[in-house]
Amino acid sequence: MKKIAVLPGDGIGPEIMAEAVKVLKALDLPLQLDWADVGGKAYETAGHPLPPATLKLAQEADAVLFGAVGDWKYDKLERSLRPEQAILGLRKALGLFANFRPAICYEQLTHASSLKPELVAGLDILIIRELTGDIYFGQPRGRRTAVDGHFPGSEEGFDTMRYSRPEIERIAHVAFQAARKRNKRLTSVDKANVLETSQLWKDVVTEVHKDYPDVELDHMYVDNAAMQLVKAPKKFDVVVTGNMFGDILSDEAAMLTGSIGMLPSASLDVNNKGLYEPSHGSAPDIAGNGIANPLATILSAAMMLKFSLNMPEAAARIEAAVESVLAQGLRTADIWSEGTSKVTTLEMGDAVVKAI
Amino acid sequence: MKKIAVLPGDGIGPEIMAEAVKVLKALDLPLQLDWADVGGKAYETAGHPLPPATLKLAQEADAVLFGAVGDWKYDKLERSLRPEQAILGLRKALGLFANFRPAICYEQLTHASSLKPELVAGLDILIIRELTGDIYFGQPRGRRTAVDGHFPGSEEGFDTMRYSRPEIERIAHVAFQAARKRNKRLTSVDKANVLETSQLWKDVVTEVHKDYPDVELDHMYVDNAAMQLVKAPKKFDVVVTGNMFGDILSDEAAMLTGSIGMLPSASLDVNNKGLYEPSHGSAPDIAGNGIANPLATILSAAMMLKFSLNMPEAAARIEAAVESVLAQGLRTADIWSEGTSKVTTLEMGDAVVKAI
Ligand SMILES: CC(C)[C@H](C(=O)O)[C@@H](O)C(=O)O
Ligand SMILES: CC(C)[C@H](C(=O)O)[C@@H](O)C(=O)O
Repeated sequence: MKKIAVLPGDGIGPEIMAEAVKVLKALDLPLQLDWADVGGKAYETAGHPLPPATLKLAQEADAVLFGAVGDWKYDKLERSLRPEQAILGLRKALGLFANFRPAICYEQLTHASSLKPELVAGLDILIIRELTGDIYFGQPRGRRTAVDGHFPGSEEGFDTMRYSRPEIERIAHVAFQAARKRNKRLTSVDKANVLETSQLWKDVVTEVHKDYPDVELDHMYVDNAAMQLVKAPKKFDVVVTGNMFGDILSDEAAMLTGSIGMLPSASLDVNNKGLYEPSHGSAPDIAGNGIANPLATILSAAMMLKFSLNMPEAAARIEAAVESVLAQGLRTADIWSEGTSKVTTLEMGDAVVKAI
Repeated sequence: MKKIAVLPGDGIGPEIMAEAVKVLKALDLPLQLDWADVGGKAYETAGHPLPPATLKLAQEADAVLFGAVGDWKYDKLERSLRPEQAILGLRKALGLFANFRPAICYEQLTHASSLKPELVAGLDILIIRELTGDIYFGQPRGRRTAVDGHFPGSEEGFDTMRYSRPEIERIAHVAFQAARKRNKRLTSVDKANVLETSQLWKDVVTEVHKDYPDVELDHMYVDNAAMQLVKAPKKFDVVVTGNMFGDILSDEAAMLTGSIGMLPSASLDVNNKGLYEPSHGSAPDIAGNGIANPLATILSAAMMLKFSLNMPEAAARIEAAVESVLAQGLRTADIWSEGTSKVTTLEMGDAVVKAI
């Protein structure tokens, strides 16, 4: 019996999670699902976005299935109580350093992209983002009186970007291994022409490359990567980068596909225990309307079965079922186009179950 | 007599600069042009990418016209001697804190974009990037032995992100004033859900907004901005952001237009003295072939006349001449398409001169 912590969260989180759970149940696997509040919902019920009980559940589980957190109504709270602290807290507490964000353009959804169809048809990039280091967690940080710079004596905000050699090594190994299973090309993104942290990043990735001579490595500055993703996204295979640059580039890449409502993600620790969540956010503007696309969450559940629970056949069944509902022409509003059938969140979940 | 420091630099720099100078001379303005080496070229002739003589010339000039720097052949030099240190050094030494990067899609060049024509036709965004602060220049930075974090005792690279209140205030004023002259909408981009520096940024921009009640302000996280630029770029008017995020987003926005070879930029100090350069790089792969697009540099010269030299009529004449050569169907290779006439760098410069 494997234990799954199910954390629906805010906005459309509960709706899309209900469908993913429906799909998991249809597979009749040896899974025990335990639910808990997280994000704004948990702040309301327990006074904190990541209450101790939720954290404990996540720590004791074999994997975490996460919906989405955040709502404008919490914008006025102090930062430590805001919903997104839940996801940052989980990443840190569970040591989820390796974030896998595929940017895939499904054949039937090519039209949904902002890009010309020939640029995105068949797109399949994997962005691997380091998730527990960098300026997200570096100390010191805060506000203080500037002692140097342009305006000594004035108030300043500051943060510390940092990466240590072993942190870079472990994410580099993850990335080279992932590239090996794909088209054997890895692009490491940094800003080594300006940042010391990036120079170490580049040096260490270059060293780790010696263990993977069969993988082709190139280095790209982050500003150039942001451009090349727009210009010729299909030139990329696997991209590895730090937490901050990965935040920006993985969202840009996801949006290039035009169907971010389809994209799952995995965040893994050193033992492949992971947290799985859709790449999109909590979309409070459409929450409760039953129109959200549950497929990213359903595909996140498939990733979970594959990466953390060693149930690759069950994962493949979900993936095949998703392909099949797309082939049937079923579409939630976000990916709908002339000539396809618009369905609700619930109908989409039911269709996937039926296809299984 | 106004003094212009002309710094052609590396790669295609000399070729595109020759055309911009040709255009300036055709206008017969009271300008004195003084040339100097910069970047890799200066490293070769004087041992440093920004030699004292070049810096002095730039400091004494009323404006700097800059080509481009960088070439792979300098990749092995230590960072302080690499070509890009010239541009960082000039920004810092001249106090060029306000970088203007328009992302404009010329009607005749809509087809060159990766995006569907309806998403970019008529696009006209202005990205204002703070250019002398942030993690680019923050101290301390370097390598050291980690005392905390995930791997205490290991080597780490680190950098400091920082912004002081007056630094944010002055760039915010520049941005609100620019928005006032356009469609009165300003988007401030930060990562305040994670970074202390960003939270101060957001707070200060919100305060400065009180002086500009006629301008509509919204705040956007940088990951979301990277997505919205792809999804619906025309929703933006003016964007203001820090040095690091501005580096990434301004390049992404430029590439969205598909014609980065057309885009000028200005970097201004508190007195509107400025450095003007094309948004594209030194393109060493095509240097010397006479095929580079000189229009971004020619339009940078126009920006210089307008922003720093108070010669708006002359600037308008250049801009009209560029519109006219495009209307004539003249195109360098980067923007060429079926049915238009392919011209060389030199022919394009001549055509602009003729149109003046
Ligand atoms: C909510 C936020 C803190 C988070 C991040 O920046 O990592 C999100 O943007 C993401 O990418 O998961
Ligand atoms: C060359 C590099 C240091 C520079 C920067 O990062 O600012 C460049 O990318 C730019 O945007 O002008």
